[in-house]
Amino acid sequence: MTQKIVLAYSGGLDTSVAIPWLQDKGYQVITVCLNVGQHGKQMDQIQQKALKLGAIQSLVIDGQDDFAENYVSKVIKSNALYEGEYPLISALSRPLIIKKLVKVAHENNADTIAHGSTGKGNDQVRFEAAIHALDPEMKIEAPIRDFQWSREEEIEYAHQHKVPVPINFDSPYSIDENLWGRANEAGILEDPWNQAPEDAFALTQAIEKTPDQPDYADIEFKNGLPVSLNNKKMKLADLIKELNKTAGKHGIGRIDHVENRLIGIKSREIYEAPAAKVIMTAHKDLEDITLEHDLAHFKPLIENEITDLIYNAMWISPLFDALNSFIDKTQELVNGCVKMKLFKGNVTAVARKSEKNSLYSKELATYTSANSFDEQAAAGFMKLYTLPATVFEQVNHIHSKAKAQIGTEQ
Amino acid sequence: MTQKIVLAYSGGLDTSVAIPWLQDKGYQVITVCLNVGQHGKQMDQIQQKALKLGAIQSLVIDGQDDFAENYVSKVIKSNALYEGEYPLISALSRPLIIKKLVKVAHENNADTIAHGSTGKGNDQVRFEAAIHALDPEMKIEAPIRDFQWSREEEIEYAHQHKVPVPINFDSPYSIDENLWGRANEAGILEDPWNQAPEDAFALTQAIEKTPDQPDYADIEFKNGLPVSLNNKKMKLADLIKELNKTAGKHGIGRIDHVENRLIGIKSREIYEAPAAKVIMTAHKDLEDITLEHDLAHFKPLIENEITDLIYNAMWISPLFDALNSFIDKTQELVNGCVKMKLFKGNVTAVARKSEKNSLYSKELATYTSANSFDEQAAAGFMKLYTLPATVFEQVNHIHSKAKAQIGTEQ
Amino acid sequence: MTQKIVLAYSGGLDTSVAIPWLQDKGYQVITVCLNVGQHGKQMDQIQQKALKLGAIQSLVIDGQDDFAENYVSKVIKSNALYEGEYPLISALSRPLIIKKLVKVAHENNADTIAHGSTGKGNDQVRFEAAIHALDPEMKIEAPIRDFQWSREEEIEYAHQHKVPVPINFDSPYSIDENLWGRANEAGILEDPWNQAPEDAFALTQAIEKTPDQPDYADIEFKNGLPVSLNNKKMKLADLIKELNKTAGKHGIGRIDHVENRLIGIKSREIYEAPAAKVIMTAHKDLEDITLEHDLAHFKPLIENEITDLIYNAMWISPLFDALNSFIDKTQELVNGCVKMKLFKGNVTAVARKSEKNSLYSKELATYTSANSFDEQAAAGFMKLYTLPATVFEQVNHIHSKAKAQIGTEQ
Amino acid sequence: MTQKIVLAYSGGLDTSVAIPWLQDKGYQVITVCLNVGQHGKQMDQIQQKALKLGAIQSLVIDGQDDFAENYVSKVIKSNALYEGEYPLISALSRPLIIKKLVKVAHENNADTIAHGSTGKGNDQVRFEAAIHALDPEMKIEAPIRDFQWSREEEIEYAHQHKVPVPINFDSPYSIDENLWGRANEAGILEDPWNQAPEDAFALTQAIEKTPDQPDYADIEFKNGLPVSLNNKKMKLADLIKELNKTAGKHGIGRIDHVENRLIGIKSREIYEAPAAKVIMTAHKDLEDITLEHDLAHFKPLIENEITDLIYNAMWISPLFDALNSFIDKTQELVNGCVKMKLFKGNVTAVARKSEKNSLYSKELATYTSANSFDEQAAAGFMKLYTLPATVFEQVNHIHSKAKAQIGTEQ
Repeated sequence: MTQKIVLAYSGGLDTSVAIPWLQDKGYQVITVCLNVGQHGKQMDQIQQKALKLGAIQSLVIDGQDDFAENYVSKVIKSNALYEGEYPLISALSRPLIIKKLVKVAHENNADTIAHGSTGKGNDQVRFEAAIHALDPEMKIEAPIRDFQWSREEEIEYAHQHKVPVPINFDSPYSIDENLWGRANEAGILEDPWNQAPEDAFALTQAIEKTPDQPDYADIEFKNGLPVSLNNKKMKLADLIKELNKTAGKHGIGRIDHVENRLIGIKSREIYEAPAAKVIMTAHKDLEDITLEHDLAHFKPLIENEITDLIYNAMWISPLFDALNSFIDKTQELVNGCVKMKLFKGNVTAVARKSEKNSLYSKELATYTSANSFDEQAAAGFMKLYTLPATVFEQVNHIHSKAKAQIGTEQ
Repeated sequence: MTQKIVLAYSGGLDTSVAIPWLQDKGYQVITVCLNVGQHGKQMDQIQQKALKLGAIQSLVIDGQDDFAENYVSKVIKSNALYEGEYPLISALSRPLIIKKLVKVAHENNADTIAHGSTGKGNDQVRFEAAIHALDPEMKIEAPIRDFQWSREEEIEYAHQHKVPVPINFDSPYSIDENLWGRANEAGILEDPWNQAPEDAFALTQAIEKTPDQPDYADIEFKNGLPVSLNNKKMKLADLIKELNKTAGKHGIGRIDHVENRLIGIKSREIYEAPAAKVIMTAHKDLEDITLEHDLAHFKPLIENEITDLIYNAMWISPLFDALNSFIDKTQELVNGCVKMKLFKGNVTAVARKSEKNSLYSKELATYTSANSFDEQAAAGFMKLYTLPATVFEQVNHIHSKAKAQIGTEQ
Repeated sequence: MTQKIVLAYSGGLDTSVAIPWLQDKGYQVITVCLNVGQHGKQMDQIQQKALKLGAIQSLVIDGQDDFAENYVSKVIKSNALYEGEYPLISALSRPLIIKKLVKVAHENNADTIAHGSTGKGNDQVRFEAAIHALDPEMKIEAPIRDFQWSREEEIEYAHQHKVPVPINFDSPYSIDENLWGRANEAGILEDPWNQAPEDAFALTQAIEKTPDQPDYADIEFKNGLPVSLNNKKMKLADLIKELNKTAGKHGIGRIDHVENRLIGIKSREIYEAPAAKVIMTAHKDLEDITLEHDLAHFKPLIENEITDLIYNAMWISPLFDALNSFIDKTQELVNGCVKMKLFKGNVTAVARKSEKNSLYSKELATYTSANSFDEQAAAGFMKLYTLPATVFEQVNHIHSKAKAQIGTEQ
Repeated sequence: MTQKIVLAYSGGLDTSVAIPWLQDKGYQVITVCLNVGQHGKQMDQIQQKALKLGAIQSLVIDGQDDFAENYVSKVIKSNALYEGEYPLISALSRPLIIKKLVKVAHENNADTIAHGSTGKGNDQVRFEAAIHALDPEMKIEAPIRDFQWSREEEIEYAHQHKVPVPINFDSPYSIDENLWGRANEAGILEDPWNQAPEDAFALTQAIEKTPDQPDYADIEFKNGLPVSLNNKKMKLADLIKELNKTAGKHGIGRIDHVENRLIGIKSREIYEAPAAKVIMTAHKDLEDITLEHDLAHFKPLIENEITDLIYNAMWISPLFDALNSFIDKTQELVNGCVKMKLFKGNVTAVARKSEKNSLYSKELATYTSANSFDEQAAAGFMKLYTLPATVFEQVNHIHSKAKAQIGTEQ
């Protein structure tokens, strides 16, 4: 009596080899390949390949709009950059993939899900945390983690089971990619004193090869999310794709980062995120004119926590939901337009406006020009504002103790 | 019976006009001009000018090393960027200037200090907070705030009192500058939808005019501070000057930012900070390999508070001192070298190493290669790590409630 | 041509004297006395008194339910204790009072509002901040701040204008009170080394006089708010009143606190908040079994900010709204019952349950009893959980350097 | 060839049975019993018992002063209460015990340490994290975790190996105790709706039995730590013992708390901490008059992180060290005396003074009485302080939109 299993399938060697391997363990394999905007992947070929390798069903699901609107959107609104640098590319697609896997499992009465993560990375935690949360009774197989094969053994197994070995199998790079960017780990990068070679990049041109004329991108935001590019209304997924092209051409969005993994080690990563870099820079710039002072200064604390939760596999958690209630509230008034200049690897917000929500506005000029008001107010403000620290000095003389010595020091 | 007053003197029209104005109020004026690395200022001419205008004493003090080692250093160690963008150029020099003014006042038995701040900015608070803290009995004059003159009236007054009016007095820009960068506010920039014109910049070349070959800067850090540049040991002030030249040539360090002033309004600022941009990027990159995970994730919270205190005139305060105790402790092990690439407006950390303190190291390869260990540990880790959120879902079914609906939703 | 003014009226001497004083300045005075649960105040007498003193209209508004449901509720949900001790009694009623004053002003075409705050406290800021926010064109009078009278002058003025001087006018105490508690400042308390005398308290009995038998209060919460007391459904305002009586009888809720005022000084305050103490202790206890681990550990940060905003006059601000979105989300699952023991000044949560939302539950016993699972998982968890700090020690030997010395130290 | 092992020994059944069990595995057992102030334990009997059971060496080490001065002190300075309630009793002794175990292991060339933690609690993590940090090569045995015996099997094994079974072995309670308090977990407490029975407590009297007269404790602090009690200078360990007696007599310090364990589950704990409750209340009260406003408002964030690190086994970590640098800096000026009233389960700070460091002081009365100054300053302060939120309302009309509706709502 065989059991059905749903396998997260990418079309690559590892998850292809997993199909016969799971069959050998007695499973009927249903593969699911989710299109989250991987660059240059041909979904129909992937679909056929799985069937050829013995899958009883091979699903290809277009998740691009879902990904842009329900996952990438949260990163934009919360300016989420892990450790200040990484826009959460892979971390972001995992919860969506699992949602789809669990759905397919339920529809097909499969009681097990298989994922292709290794034992040393963050992804295994993201997969298993989300599966447990969505269905605590679902069982899990992690074939790649369990193979424990050398490369030769994997090729040998592939040949035995007629799994085609790709010609670029010797590529030193391990890639993950979606709409929001591309992540690259590789042996040569493991020494952080080695510079990343040019062939580690695929979405962005080297600055040496970028155009000598800038492009400008006017990005219109509504409730904190981009809705049009250069005055053309676009779905978020399409806008991201368009910007990936333009910004990639200008060499924008390369990231070289040694990061702290969830799993306790540091790893060196090369990312490319052209559209992400442009959109997130624009979003922050628009917030600078639409968010009130105290809110602007508190929000980063929330952003930081959201970022860590996404990276750390906690997408499905009550804290994540509560933090997003905060963020969504703040974004209601983040409306307006930012003009971005894309040139030679640089993306700069050169101008910004918000007709309805700018807190920097001509109509408020009274606050900037009315001198009599300001100067009176400023004097009083200073007295009370600085009172606690002044009293502290009067009592404790920490810095003013130096008074007597000031004459002698240089 | 006249009283002595110590005037913070820049050599510009405002503080020059202040000399006769303070004399008219019955003061004997002692001017102090502090050299904190203003670009292209001739200190001896400034000194003579004050005497010519009637100052009884005109002091020029070289504060460059003090500024670099005791003020800029704190910004480097704490990655301090106000609202994520502004490296605190002007905010940073104020406490040093006041320290010197108070010292001169005490040496000369002056009981009043005069500063040149207007009534609409942050600087008045920084000046008065620091003066109160260092000597609560010191009196304060703020002539520019009190003039309330139109430009014509100021010129008229200048002519009457033989104060030379500079030929570029019609410059629309209001500039403040030191080693750490240059700040520029101006009428034309007050509409944030206006792009900054090229003549708003002085330290950085337009990207169009930058060299077609990159420069590399190997920066060696000790205890979180740069100690050598391309293997040449340098004092911090000299290293900053050198990098200002090289990075400025490559168009690095332009900032266009609408910021929240302490004083309750938003203002649009154009900054240039070539060396700051290079050094701070390198410092953060070195921390990525030398700071332990939890420390790296908590430190930004401290950095944020330090940054706000500096911007908000709280340099002399017990909170600032306690936060710096935290920061100094963290920097003891931030030792190593970062290779920076400077090219076409971009500064990128392309390689980094720390012989003694890298937590990403070959000797620890056991943690990255020992598969059997990792995989067992990972499984256990995931179970307990995700337990609270899993139990939460089992009890409350917030996301897994969707289980039944998963079949029907797309 | 006289202008109408709306005066926040308490019935006390200060705001009574303000009526003729405002009339003398040419205003037609409309008084508004808001009932927010002041203990023992007779609203009809207050109403008559204002009319007798010349008010053209004297309104008494019952705001108790509004206060409980829209103001106190936020403090309960966010465990808001200023500086860990003060349940925000007075700070909480101000925004409601202003809302009503502005409403009355608009209904009566009055363009000015008068409040009775002094120049040294927090309340003036709370009043004026809220008025500015609700109607930036509304003008403000602060007669008590402007009197600058000695006590004798005030009595003299009162006699002249037939304002009755209360017989206990010599009471040394300055009191503010509402449903949520009672605040007391007084001369004798200004030396913080003086113990508060027994007559400083009105809502709570001295422990020496409390009953020798405890009372128990079973408080049922729904969405983080109390809905029944000892199985009797009650409106929140009524439940608070009931608990004020019972808990006050047992001497619960006295607070003696030196606090940091918004306005830059420290002040010593005596508060009584019997119901607040019981409800807030119960609420936190129920959260302990219903909030997931990470959420429980992050929420205090939000609570702290909400608390400071309420104290610091920022009830009407976008940050406050966003923080409350977070809080409201967290409270959806805070349902259950807590048994409180009230005895000799102590209030203790002695038992708690949540049928639907307890994350501490018998059904989850598998997690506590299944040894084989736990022990395996724990070993793996520990390895990865402690990995960063362990690697740090291996590299830097901060504590293990002591290894060699361990033999010699005691 | 046998190996030496160092066993953390308490004298109880579990660690007694561990002696023959470890011998059976081939170890020579050295027992270490650390005196950290366990109430009523006879150390010489414990020492003899281990030898009788076959230990080759049985050490009893007095760690009380070390514990008070280097461990408890950190909790006092940082007001550390886990989840607002638990003063970290057991969590605090673990790092000290391990330090001693590692020292004994190094002195005796033992390469393994054995601890008595189970697989379901926090302690195993605390033990193993600290051992790894102090000596990454040290091996670990956790016999109790590995027994997996039923109670009957353990008794059977004990009889076979002549390990005496205590007469109160049927006690349902599992206790851990030291100077700083007593922790109690038990079967009957596992239903959080069950009230804790009176025999769950040992250090504190039931309120019903407490004296009818209060005691007062004047506690003098220096640099944030208690140095004298009722004007009698005492070592910290002695002062704690003395207060445990007095406060316990008055029924002070019982805690009933459902807490989030590090290991992913919630557990219900009964603690007693009489001295801790008194000292920590006094310390916070003294900080209220000696810490400057901004520092007082930021410190809780640091305290919270320190508390979590101690609870979560991260005593030896670079973040912990950096946070303590912050705390130590803040405590330099926490000097003064607090008068505590102990009565019927209540401990209250009724008076406090700090001759040199009080920021609430008679000499500063000018700030509280000088009306003209205050009122002018307050007006200016309010204008600028509330400016950002006011501008926000003017632009966005979130709350003032309600203006039109105010007439219609009640």
